Amino acid sequence: MPSALEQLRARLAKIDDLENAAAILEWDQETHMPSAGVEARSRQVSTLRQFAHELHCEDETARLLQTAEPETEIDKDLLRVATRDFHHATRIPADLVGELSRVTGMAREGWKEGKANDEFSAFEPHLAAVIDCNLRKAEALGYPDEPYDALLDEFEPGMLTSQVSTVFEALRSDLVELVGQIAQKPTIDEGVLTRYYPAKAQWDLGVRVMTDLGYDFSRGRQDRSAHPFSTTFSVTDSRVTTHLNRHHFNPAFFGSLHEAGHAMYEQGVDHELDGTPLQDGTSLGIHESQSRLWENLVGRSRPFWDHYFPAVQGYFPAALSGVSSSDFYRAVNAVRPSLIRIEADEVTYNLHIMVRFELERAMLSGEVKPADLPEAWNARMDDYLDVTPTTDSEGCLQDIHWSLGTFGYFPTYALGNLISAQLWTAMERDCGNLADLVANGEFATLLGWLRQNVHRHGRRKSANQILGSTCGTGLDAGPWMDYARAKFGELYGLA
Amino acid sequence: MPSALEQLRARLAKIDDLENAAAILEWDQETHMPSAGVEARSRQVSTLRQFAHELHCEDETARLLQTAEPETEIDKDLLRVATRDFHHATRIPADLVGELSRVTGMAREGWKEGKANDEFSAFEPHLAAVIDCNLRKAEALGYPDEPYDALLDEFEPGMLTSQVSTVFEALRSDLVELVGQIAQKPTIDEGVLTRYYPAKAQWDLGVRVMTDLGYDFSRGRQDRSAHPFSTTFSVTDSRVTTHLNRHHFNPAFFGSLHEAGHAMYEQGVDHELDGTPLQDGTSLGIHESQSRLWENLVGRSRPFWDHYFPAVQGYFPAALSGVSSSDFYRAVNAVRPSLIRIEADEVTYNLHIMVRFELERAMLSGEVKPADLPEAWNARMDDYLDVTPTTDSEGCLQDIHWSLGTFGYFPTYALGNLISAQLWTAMERDCGNLADLVANGEFATLLGWLRQNVHRHGRRKSANQILGSTCGTGLDAGPWMDYARAKFGELYGLA
Repeated sequence: MPSALEQLRARLAKIDDLENAAAILEWDQETHMPSAGVEARSRQVSTLRQFAHELHCEDETARLLQTAEPETEIDKDLLRVATRDFHHATRIPADLVGELSRVTGMAREGWKEGKANDEFSAFEPHLAAVIDCNLRKAEALGYPDEPYDALLDEFEPGMLTSQVSTVFEALRSDLVELVGQIAQKPTIDEGVLTRYYPAKAQWDLGVRVMTDLGYDFSRGRQDRSAHPFSTTFSVTDSRVTTHLNRHHFNPAFFGSLHEAGHAMYEQGVDHELDGTPLQDGTSLGIHESQSRLWENLVGRSRPFWDHYFPAVQGYFPAALSGVSSSDFYRAVNAVRPSLIRIEADEVTYNLHIMVRFELERAMLSGEVKPADLPEAWNARMDDYLDVTPTTDSEGCLQDIHWSLGTFGYFPTYALGNLISAQLWTAMERDCGNLADLVANGEFATLLGWLRQNVHRHGRRKSANQILGSTCGTGLDAGPWMDYARAKFGELYGLA
Repeated sequence: MPSALEQLRARLAKIDDLENAAAILEWDQETHMPSAGVEARSRQVSTLRQFAHELHCEDETARLLQTAEPETEIDKDLLRVATRDFHHATRIPADLVGELSRVTGMAREGWKEGKANDEFSAFEPHLAAVIDCNLRKAEALGYPDEPYDALLDEFEPGMLTSQVSTVFEALRSDLVELVGQIAQKPTIDEGVLTRYYPAKAQWDLGVRVMTDLGYDFSRGRQDRSAHPFSTTFSVTDSRVTTHLNRHHFNPAFFGSLHEAGHAMYEQGVDHELDGTPLQDGTSLGIHESQSRLWENLVGRSRPFWDHYFPAVQGYFPAALSGVSSSDFYRAVNAVRPSLIRIEADEVTYNLHIMVRFELERAMLSGEVKPADLPEAWNARMDDYLDVTPTTDSEGCLQDIHWSLGTFGYFPTYALGNLISAQLWTAMERDCGNLADLVANGEFATLLGWLRQNVHRHGRRKSANQILGSTCGTGLDAGPWMDYARAKFGELYGLA
């Protein structure tokens, strides 16, 4: 008779298998599936997720979680994380799950219509329903201080709204000031980025650089999809996708670095954790810190382009002959306040996120009513970025997230940026001058440090624990702000 | 409260989803998965199949099958087929399922070793255990006349061993005679087939011809894999794979026709049957009749090459300049008795199958002991094909099937050939001169007839019912033998 711990592990492995199978079906849907297959595919994915959910919520899972006796430190972490997941899966009552599904089904249609016709009123009642459902969900899940804590915790376990808020508040004024200073300076010419970049050369370059950084193609692969993403089916199979735009250098190149960053995190998880709920990134913020570290702190740095530009010129002789490494470095770092988050540069991106975080929190607390969202949105865009949407489609209707019912997700994008700079500082303390390593293409030291301090732990350590053990602090915007001031100060010749 | 019938349909749809998800994972494994992913993938597939099996075998399935009241003719067929599947899933006792898995696990290793070292003794004890398990399985499943009926029925529902045996016996003497006559004639030069055929041109040609035949790429796709196969995830997603050999024209080209034949069958199943166990080929013999019809009766016919050869020359100008359509037609139809089944030509292939069918049956009845297999094998190869293996690796150890525990599968390969000619005769009766249609590239008439008479029914009609309604007979080797005599008589100038 297997012990309760063994039975629990077997049960969790099965749940994991079902979830990973669903992820494989979704990957296929985005990369290879003939379009006619979509209806059957939705049914298949839904069946797998339903089986996983049912197995997860069975009383037997609760019984095993209560009776299993941990033998190792990993067992203890496993029980803690699995118990957390069990509560998340079971605490939301079935009628609310149904209601959420119904409300978001309609909200998505309302959002599509509103965005297409620039008519916020088409989305407004659905937004109210989404907020109501999220409040009920927060009550069901429980929270320490405010409802938003419960929603944030789904994506960023253990992080408190107040922690995020304090850090964002401090960052915001510094950032608005920096953006204002940059706006006084001449713009950087980005024309070189929109020349003709043949698709095959983009693909080959991406594969070469990902390989150099340390993405292991023997445990992964790259395919094309409409929107780039990374997805993991096991420690030995973590994949990325890319989208090639022949008339813009950035999407495929920086997209590949970004997704490779996510996938290298998953590839670095300790193999002992395979088939358990510990085998996964610990939070979306930490996950995003990995993608942003490779995309921006490495991939948009001067030493990176000093190292790679001659090779990149070889891939695109027509587009890049006569261009200097320095000009190209400047182009990929141009700061340009704009209305649309997904087009935002490294500096202004965090401000787009703060707008959303503040408004989500204000809508949950009732401080901002759904009807007042457009005005509140536009006022913040004006304050923070000095741009004002002329339509709601390019304003508060631009993102799909709220129509999916997702509140608490947006801040993790900015957390990723901040954490990437915190980790960078700790890495520099431990490994010496990182710029020299990047300039020499010696990425193994960086990846090794990340593996040792972040990746291998999977979900055994929370974001706060990782920050504590590497940086000796909690979440802190200081390192990122220092980095941004230095980099963009030099680029734009600020005082 | 949904009716028992509705509940049954929902349950069967979930089983179907799980099985199809497993097929998607297996497709990915053969086409795209990084090799390091194999261990996790085996676990994932096994979990899905286990869930499907458990759901299938639950008492609730039996209860619903007994209480569901059919409202339509489709419902009646659904209940009949689902009841059959339920019995197959539940009649084999759990300890025998475990024993089969254990025995075949070891048998596969024994077979690998035996084949690699040309040592039949390494496989012999495992073969004895496989036979024993198959006998117990046959007893558990039940059979009308002899144990082999039960095993054959798994792949060819409703077909009796005696039916197959009678047809094979009659065919064998005719076929041995034909092969003997051909052996007296000068061999056909096949050298043209092993020139250099660039991979991209092979791929493009395959896609073009499959499209011409009627394979619907909007509901399917082609990928590369080590061994070509077709697989279906829904009526709207039925895929094929191919293997390109730059130094041989045949594998990719005829492989594509073959797999497209399988996939077009699945694409032609009535959409109403989607998500039910009726949505599938009705038997392996009927399935193989579809692949063989397109591969051989169409794709290796003179009118086909009269139509396509100029275009094919355009794809391979270097290899085919100066070659005539007639020479090429002759080359792809060369008959050459050989030791290895998978390299066999259209004429000798059936004899390879008969050797296996006769020996499977004789081993089950105890007439041939495992130890005597090599001798019995070699004697038959000598009698039927006038070739004698000098090693068991190129004799009775050449196929993997028995080591997988599979008895009763081989005959369906030959049934496919025979049925393809039976259907061809019926089609010619209904549609007029098929050679003219093929010569003009008018394949839609052929496909339309197959859709109407075979494909759309899915599993609603058995192989025998399809033969009855189209040909007015049961299984009959006459049409295939007439076809072979006429075609190869002309090719080899026989009297």
